[in-house]
This record gives sequence, structure tokens and C-alpha cells, in this order.
Amino acid sequence: MKELILLRHGESEWNAENRFTGWADVPLSAAGRQEAALAGRRLKESGFTCRGACCSVLVRAVHTLNIVLDEMDCAWVPVHKDWRLNEKHYGALQGRHKAEVENEAGAEQVRRWRRAYDCPPPALQPGDERLPKLDARYDAIPRHLLPVTESLLDTRLRVRACWEELVRPRLYAAGTLLVVAHGNSLRALVMHLRGLTPTGVEQLEIPTAHPLRFVFDDDMKLLS
Amino acid sequence: MKELILLRHGESEWNAENRFTGWADVPLSAAGRQEAALAGRRLKESGFTCRGACCSVLVRAVHTLNIVLDEMDCAWVPVHKDWRLNEKHYGALQGRHKAEVENEAGAEQVRRWRRAYDCPPPALQPGDERLPKLDARYDAIPRHLLPVTESLLDTRLRVRACWEELVRPRLYAAGTLLVVAHGNSLRALVMHLRGLTPTGVEQLEIPTAHPLRFVFDDDMKLLS
Repeated sequence: MKELILLRHGESEWNAENRFTGWADVPLSAAGRQEAALAGRRLKESGFTCRGACCSVLVRAVHTLNIVLDEMDCAWVPVHKDWRLNEKHYGALQGRHKAEVENEAGAEQVRRWRRAYDCPPPALQPGDERLPKLDARYDAIPRHLLPVTESLLDTRLRVRACWEELVRPRLYAAGTLLVVAHGNSLRALVMHLRGLTPTGVEQLEIPTAHPLRFVFDDDMKLLS
Repeated sequence: MKELILLRHGESEWNAENRFTGWADVPLSAAGRQEAALAGRRLKESGFTCRGACCSVLVRAVHTLNIVLDEMDCAWVPVHKDWRLNEKHYGALQGRHKAEVENEAGAEQVRRWRRAYDCPPPALQPGDERLPKLDARYDAIPRHLLPVTESLLDTRLRVRACWEELVRPRLYAAGTLLVVAHGNSLRALVMHLRGLTPTGVEQLEIPTAHPLRFVFDDDMKLLS
């Protein structure tokens, strides 16, 4: 048996302000830190024994993971940070207030940018200081892989590669694994694990700091 | 040019109580957390750009590293935790007050256990609940490698292996690396890097949370 826990980071400062975040590196709010600690205590009480962890390279996921590991007395656990677990890239919407964008583009368009499977927001333009290639944390990533916006389909492709190359092998080797990531990167991962359709995934919401448990047999067949 | 920073963790609760710690997993004191934050700010101000980090599997080193990375806005940096960076194992002395042990064994004997190159403290006995093999964090380590006590020579052998297999290759690849470890594991590493003799290393003290800088050329020859 192999046990996988997926956890969305706690509330960030921009979640609280209802702004598009994506790859913007926004810290947890005070409430988000409390959510993370509570998730850690619940995981410990549930008997989960953490033997490895993965997270994105965004600070709200790294900090959520650190807080959860501390609550479980597991600061020693090996952690692998991977950009492919990052949130969906929200392109030119990153940093903007959702209400303001709804006023400009309409609520239905915003819903599609947020929830539809193959509808990327407007892309970052050349020269934009928010471009991932200008951020040192992505220096080692081939430029053509770095997005300027993403649909959930785009996110799913990199999340699936990360599942195949990083998460699944580590889960298999360690027996238990905790993955701390984001609303849309986890929607993409759950879509892959559960075989959801593009229509099905539109209905899927991942709440913050609420552990989702997946159990596999020793051949990595999903049991529950 | 390659830049290596060695950093001893901030003061732990047992440093403050003057107790032997070794592999006992004692958290930072409040003063130790402040020391770590100050070290992080100083590293940032010095212009150090952290591109990778290694630490032991003991919580006082992991937390020191997390605090330093946060101060440098580098929570995304890849971190590798390795048991071979742990403090020297202090055997049966772990947890005991230094003054009490000095009263029993004499100040000169305690000095030798603490500072001499080849003088291991009394070993943990079979059945002792402090034995590393009973701790889940060492489950993947071959049993014959786990110590029941260590001299600085013993510590040096595993630290050297860690340097060759983990630290040096990562420093070479990343260009800069931060290593957060312990008084004696860092004495052993500095002994190796500087070619100190066993007598020379007896004089070497590593202060807590004080970054030590080593510069290598692109062929990994030590320059300063």
C-alpha cells in the first residue's frame, strides 16, 4: 500500500484580497498559516506517517509544507521543490483584482479563464517584468518550457510530467508522500489520477489546507 | 568561481542549558531563531546569491536554514537534507549536563571527549531508546553506518563522504551553496577543506550562526 496526501496551500495574502495570483510569489496570510498548522495537526492525528514531500517553488506552498512538517515533527523529511507543481500561470491577469477584471471582461469570461479546461488568460507581453524567464528560480529551466499564460490543459501537461518523473517514483520508493501545491495544479493532478473529463474537472474545487488522501496498491494502482 | 557558505545553526535549547546534544533532536531557542535571522540578513546584505542548500536532518539545522532562506527571499532554493551533516554523536553523554559529567569524569576528560580528534565518548548500550536505529529518519541508512558514539575522526569520515558525494557536486553545478550544520560536523569539514592536522583542529571553534565563506575556482581549487 502507498499513501499520497495532496494539500493546497493555506490562504495567501492575495487570496484574501481576491486578486489573481498564478506564479506571483505571494506569502501566506496569518489565517493561511493557521490553516496550515491545523492541517498538520489533523494529518498527525489521522496517523499519517510522512516519509517524503514535494511542493512547488512558490513561497506559499513551501511555507505551508514547512508548517505542516513541523506540526508532524517531520522537519527531517526529504523535500523536493519542483516548478511543475506551481499554480496555473495567469498571464497578464496576475496581480489584478478579480472584481476589476470582471467589470472589464464580464463575469462569464472570467469564469472561463478560471475554470474552463482550454481557455488561457491573456498572455504576458515581451518586456513584462513578470515574465518567468526574469526570475532566478527558473534559470535552470529550458526557456521554451516557461509559460507566459496557461490554460488548465497546459498546466495538466507539466503536472503530468512531474507526476511521472518525480511524484510517482518518490511515492513508490517512500511508501507515503505529501504534495503541497495549488488550486489548479492539484485540479490537474486529481484529473489525471481520477481520469476526470474536461467537463468533469470544471466542477472540481480544491479547498485550501484540506488534505486529500489517495491510496494505491503496491503496483501503484489507485484503490481509493 | 564557486562560493560556499558554511553556517552553524543558532543556539539550541540545550546549548542554552549547557547539555550534551549530539544527535538529540533539540529545537532552536528564541535567541537561536534571532541569530539565524540575523545571519540571513547579513548574507543577503553581503550580496550572497543562494542557489542551493544542504543541511543535516536535525531540526535545529533545518529551522536555521529555513529562517536564513526566508530572510534572503530564497524559500524556493533546492534543499538537500543529509544525516552525514549531523553533529558528532555524543553517545551516552547525550542529554546530560556538562557540569554534572565534569564532576564525575573530570574537566580534562570532558575536554578530550569534546575537542580531541580520536576520543569518542562512552557508547550507547543495546536497548537504549536513544539509538539512531530506532529513529524513523534513519530507516533508509544501512545499520552498520549508524553510530552509537563518535570521535571527531569518525564524524570526519562521514562528513568527507558527504562532501565528495553531495556538497561538492552541488556546489560545482549551482555555483553557490549554503551548508547549515553543527559545531563538530563543520569542524570536520573545515579540517578537510583547509588540510588541518588533528592538533590544528583542536584549536578550531565554529561560532553559532556566523557565516564562513570559502571561494573555489572553476576547477574546485580552494582560493580563500
